This record gives sequence, structure tokens and C-alpha cells, in this order.
Amino acid sequence: MNIKQGNVTSPKGFKAAGDFIGLKKAKKDLAVILSEKMCTAAGCFTSNIVKAAPVLWDINTIKNPIMAVAANSGNANACTGERGIKDSEKMAETLAELAGCQAENVLVCSTGVIGVNLPMDIINSGIKSVYKKLGSDFESGAFAAEAIMTTDTFAKTACAEVSLSGGKTVTIGAMAKGSGMINPNMATMLCFITTDAAISRPMLDKALRECVSDSFNMICVDGDTSTNDTVLALANGMAGNDEIKSENEDYQKFKEALFYINKKLAMDCARDGEGATKFMEVHTIGAKTLKDAKLMARSIVSSNLFKAALFGSDANWGRALCAMGYSGADFNPDDVTVIFKSAKGEIKLMDNGVPIVFDEQKAADILSEHDINIDIILNEGNFEAFAWGCDLSYEYVRINGDYRS
Amino acid sequence: MNIKQGNVTSPKGFKAAGDFIGLKKAKKDLAVILSEKMCTAAGCFTSNIVKAAPVLWDINTIKNPIMAVAANSGNANACTGERGIKDSEKMAETLAELAGCQAENVLVCSTGVIGVNLPMDIINSGIKSVYKKLGSDFESGAFAAEAIMTTDTFAKTACAEVSLSGGKTVTIGAMAKGSGMINPNMATMLCFITTDAAISRPMLDKALRECVSDSFNMICVDGDTSTNDTVLALANGMAGNDEIKSENEDYQKFKEALFYINKKLAMDCARDGEGATKFMEVHTIGAKTLKDAKLMARSIVSSNLFKAALFGSDANWGRALCAMGYSGADFNPDDVTVIFKSAKGEIKLMDNGVPIVFDEQKAADILSEHDINIDIILNEGNFEAFAWGCDLSYEYVRINGDYRS
Repeated sequence: MNIKQGNVTSPKGFKAAGDFIGLKKAKKDLAVILSEKMCTAAGCFTSNIVKAAPVLWDINTIKNPIMAVAANSGNANACTGERGIKDSEKMAETLAELAGCQAENVLVCSTGVIGVNLPMDIINSGIKSVYKKLGSDFESGAFAAEAIMTTDTFAKTACAEVSLSGGKTVTIGAMAKGSGMINPNMATMLCFITTDAAISRPMLDKALRECVSDSFNMICVDGDTSTNDTVLALANGMAGNDEIKSENEDYQKFKEALFYINKKLAMDCARDGEGATKFMEVHTIGAKTLKDAKLMARSIVSSNLFKAALFGSDANWGRALCAMGYSGADFNPDDVTVIFKSAKGEIKLMDNGVPIVFDEQKAADILSEHDINIDIILNEGNFEAFAWGCDLSYEYVRINGDYRS
Repeated sequence: MNIKQGNVTSPKGFKAAGDFIGLKKAKKDLAVILSEKMCTAAGCFTSNIVKAAPVLWDINTIKNPIMAVAANSGNANACTGERGIKDSEKMAETLAELAGCQAENVLVCSTGVIGVNLPMDIINSGIKSVYKKLGSDFESGAFAAEAIMTTDTFAKTACAEVSLSGGKTVTIGAMAKGSGMINPNMATMLCFITTDAAISRPMLDKALRECVSDSFNMICVDGDTSTNDTVLALANGMAGNDEIKSENEDYQKFKEALFYINKKLAMDCARDGEGATKFMEVHTIGAKTLKDAKLMARSIVSSNLFKAALFGSDANWGRALCAMGYSGADFNPDDVTVIFKSAKGEIKLMDNGVPIVFDEQKAADILSEHDINIDIILNEGNFEAFAWGCDLSYEYVRINGDYRS
């Protein structure tokens, strides 16, 4: 696998565009992705039972061949009743007319404020104007990535290529947004993955689900599972590889690259958590089961108290143990070893269940770094998991105290 | 039932004291409660599998006749390994010697920093000095309530009396602490309830569990379920009523008063949430089941995003609906009506699943009050629930960014 500079326009046959159409105050707020050929598609969607209208549209539509995607920021089209459903359908129709396909071949996504109807005049004319700007160059993909941002502070893109059997190289490109309302199952975000690989729908679906489970479902910013979470993968087959129809070697290689893309973007979302001043990777090691390892790792990155301590560079490891304790995971507290690490070094805080009297200055020094690693060693089995998150800062509160204004 | 000014010393035969012994920097940090006669006792404890040493001691001891309780703040004696267990036992022994009973007749509680061993020389001499100050007057009980505070900004006490059959009046007094690390199951707090009622252990246990389920288990400050949560009830029988041994009329009257005590103190804990500038009561009405009603109410008071919006007086009702959606409750979003209320009036934001274009100024005005009521009407059944919480403020982050320093 080669990691490359790139985005949704990197794979063969994909164009994109992003521009300001008037939903937000001034920043880009509508993105369009178009594939030259019909794509096999797969999607993972929010587990929230309050699903936004575009999510309901996509869940029904994802089984069809897909040609284009429209995504707006500034308005989530969630909790918008019957009208919201019609508005999502109209978005798909407007883009379908331009692309020369049916609405059933178009996916739509929305992100932003909940509970306000989409201004459809702006959306319809906006889709038309953005469609005219579609390009297959790097900048067009970069503009699309900008146009799906809400409180994100940087655009999130990723690209990788992988050589398959028969000497064919396939490329995967992607863009994501996510900063607040982020919690496993799945994280509150939108992610669009394009690839020129030829792969059957069942295999694409399986690979995507497995990758999302260990990436987007293992990040947390604030514990709020959004109404709009969506990861979409589109494969147009234009790389000319033998279609991946089973879990063969090509599937494994493709999945490895797809996992890199998912993990990179998931980590970017955690890193860009609303108001974040620090990024943490929690690694649980030696758990009894994979489920236990994941529950504990996710619980630590989700704990408000631990996140606030991280903000204050306070080595309050007891809060990590407390979060493991209410996670629902099975473990023996007397077996636990806790280590905090950063570029400044590492420090052991609990050793096999016994608290260690540690050098507070050294701990504060280690925690003063931006990127912090928390290792939790359980000594109970062979399973491990990673989860990613950020600290809880004043800025998170400020951002979310007046999000709508 | 008569609601009275009072605390743990109000029922007949109870003494208490609270003083500074050197665990905190300057404020009172050790409380003792003593009953003239052996008490029937009941307790509810944290569901966190990382249970602090005093919780483990109390779970084993609560079935015995109880005569005294020692509770310290400033140090939770949690995640302290084998030594922590011995320290809790030693606390009980020290108080038992003074009280003239066995360690098995003494309960102990600790609250404060996790992962640091108790300084037992200070604890032992402290118990002796506080024991000398035991009094049955109002002030002695008030000092005890102060001595269990951590980040609490006010001491929390309650008292009620109720007339039972045979013309006997029984009194229930209580004190609680709780401000951060508060989440249902049960809320992170300590609560000590004393009563002179004569009641069998099974009936006291049943009444306490039912009351806690609708009070302390329905509040949330930060979603972190602590290692030390404890509610203890001690009944010494000195009111001379016919012992309550079944769910008779006296039981119902006693339970009504006990529920008032639990609810009042639970609401006080939510009101005093770390950094709180606002208090909210969420009322879910017309749910399919009691479980659904409770899940939705608790999820709303627990949502970081909704809490941050409340801090900013932002009528972001969509976040409440979103929190209901990921709560695990079963409901149809298309049936939901959402109303925000305060002393300044009320405003409907969603009506049977349809968002309402509302007067932002009026909404901001209503939300500018300290006490906010959120009514969620489901129109799906006959069950309702209440939950209580507070907003998420800059101050919460500041308090928890450097809690240990």
C-alpha cells in the first residue's frame, strides 16, 4: 500500500466540486461528487433512531448503482418531519437531472443545525451552480472537502493506492467531516470514499463495515451520537482489476488500504474535536475479549472527567480506571497497569492494581504534549483495541453554547 | 408528611459531628454519625465494577446491626489495592473502639481523589477528635454535612416527619454530597439517611431501593459513574412506632417521606453540579413503558451538547431529540412534542413531529432563567419520568482540569 496526497478525485473517473451557495454565512457549504460510470456502493449509518431525512433516503438507495452524491453543510435536515423527506428526495432529483440518471442513483447527505427545514430554492440553484464546477483535479476534491465542514478547523482527506493481482493499481480517495456530536456507533460525521476498484457490493459492504468498526466507531468527542452519521463508499471499477468477489488476496490488500483511509480520517476527526487542545490514543492490551478491550478503550476516551483532566495536563489516572469500571467490560481492577506516554517520555501510574507514588512534575511534563498515549495493560487475555479522542476544553463549551447563532 | 428544617441529628437518638482533620487544605473533612441504639441498615452502592475500598466494606457490613458511620472527604480510597481495604477496616475499628461496638457494626465512606492511599495517622487521630465533638443539636448535624463536601458549593440536608398508626411520629433526616462524577446508576454521591422509625431490614431495604431508583438514579452531572456512590439508611426504632414489617399503610407513609428526602437531595446534587449555572428538570410524558420514559429523560439531562446549549440559553431542541434517539428507548420521532418552560413562560418547539418556527427572542428569554423545565410529550402510552441535571459550563472544565491540585 502506498499512502498518497489525494482526495475523492484521486481515483479514476471521479469528479468533485465544492462551493458557497448561501446556507452558511460565507464559507463553502455544498459538495458534489460525480462518477463517470455507475458505482457499486456501500454505506454505514447512524444507530440513532432519530435518523435525518438524507440518512433515510440513503439507506433505501444504497443498494442501487450510484452515480453521484450531493452533500450540504449548515443544515442537517434532521427532525424536519415529512417535508424533510421530500426535500432530500428533491435534492437527489435535482442532481440526477444534471447527471443524466435517476434520483434512485443519487445519494444525499446533510450536516449542520437540527430541526430547521432546508431552504430548497438555495439548495436547487446551488446544486446547479456547483455541478458546473466539477473537476477531476486535486483542487476540486479539496474544495468539496471544505464544503462539508461545520465546526471542523481543517479539511480531512486521505488517499492510498494498492497493487492487486494482474498488475493493476487501484486508488482509494476520501474526505470526511466531524468535530462535534461525535460518539462511537458511529461517530458523528460524514465520510465519502471513492475508489476505482472493481469490487462486488457484498465485498465492498463487508470491507467497509469491518473498517468502520475499528475506526469511526472507536472515536469520541462528546458522547452524542448524531442523527446524520454516514460513511459512503463508491467503487466504479475503472482501475480494470479483476472484480473482487470473494475474500481473496486482493480483498485483503484492498481492505488494508480501506482501513488506513478510515483510521486516518477517524483520527483526524478526534484530533479536530470541538475545542480540542489535545489528542489521545488509548490502547487496551491483554483483555479477555475484543468486546471488553473495545468497551474499555471507548469508555476512557468518552469520560468527561478524564477529558477535562487531560485538558489540565493532570495525571488523574484514577478517572481512567473509573471509566473502565462503568464501561460494561469484564476485568479485574487488581490486574491493571496504567502507563501515560508522549514525545516527552512515559510514566507508570498503576502497576498490577497497585497505585504508584509518581513524580508529578514528570507526569505534567509528559502531559504537556499535544499527542498523548494511554496504555492500559489488563494481563487477562490476548485481545487489544485502540480508541481515539480529545480533551474537553472551555472552547468546546463556547462552541456549543451558541452553535446556532 | 411535614417537611422540616433538619438533618441527620433530627431523628431521636442520633448524634453527629464534622470537623477539619487535615485531609483537605482547610475545610472540614471528616464526619461521624452515631446512634444511641443499634440500627437496622440498608444501602445502595455504585454499579461501577471498580468499587472503592469503603464500598466493599459497606456491602459486606450493611446486613449487620449498625451503630456508627465515619465518612471522610478529600480522598476516595479508591483504586488503592490491598492497602485500601485494610485502611477502610482500620477506620471502622477506630470508630468502633470509641463507640463501644465491633468494627462490623460500623460503616465507612470516603470521597475525593482516586488512587491515593489514605493517610491513616491523620484518619485515626481525626476520628478520635471528631468523636469528642458529637452532638444531637442542629449545628452538629450541619457540620457533618459540611465535612462530606468536595466540590459542592453548598451543604445538602433534608428532614421530614410523618405520623404513623398509634399516633407515633417518626422523623427522617439526611445529608448528601455530590457535584461531579455524577451519573445515574447511581449518581456519584454519598447520602446518609437517619430515622428513628422502627422498620424491618427487608422493608427498609425495599423502600430505599425504590426511592433511589426515582431520585438519585435520575440525575446526571457529567456521565461519569463514580467508584464511591453510596446511599445509607439507618433506622434505630426510637420513635416507638409498631415496627413496619410489611407493605402496610405505615410503610406507604414512611416511603413517601423517604422519597421526598431522596428526591430533594438528588435535585440539590444536580442543582449544585460542578460549574452549573442552570438547573433542568426533564419530564417525559406518555411513553410506551416506564423504562422508555426513564431512558429518554436521563439521556437528555446527560447530553453534553444539550447541556452546552442550555449554558448558552440556546433553544437547540434538536439536540434533545437527538439524545432521545440514541438513548435506547423505543419511540416514534413523528409523535413527539417538545416544550421548554421557565418562570418567564413557555414555548413549543416541536409539535407532533413537526418543527415549529419559533420566536428566538422569546425562547432566549425563557432560557435566561436559572430553572428550566423541558417537557417531552410522546403520545404513545401512559408512562412518565423525571430526570434532573445542569448545564455544561466553562467552570466545569476549569474545576476538573486541575481537581487534584
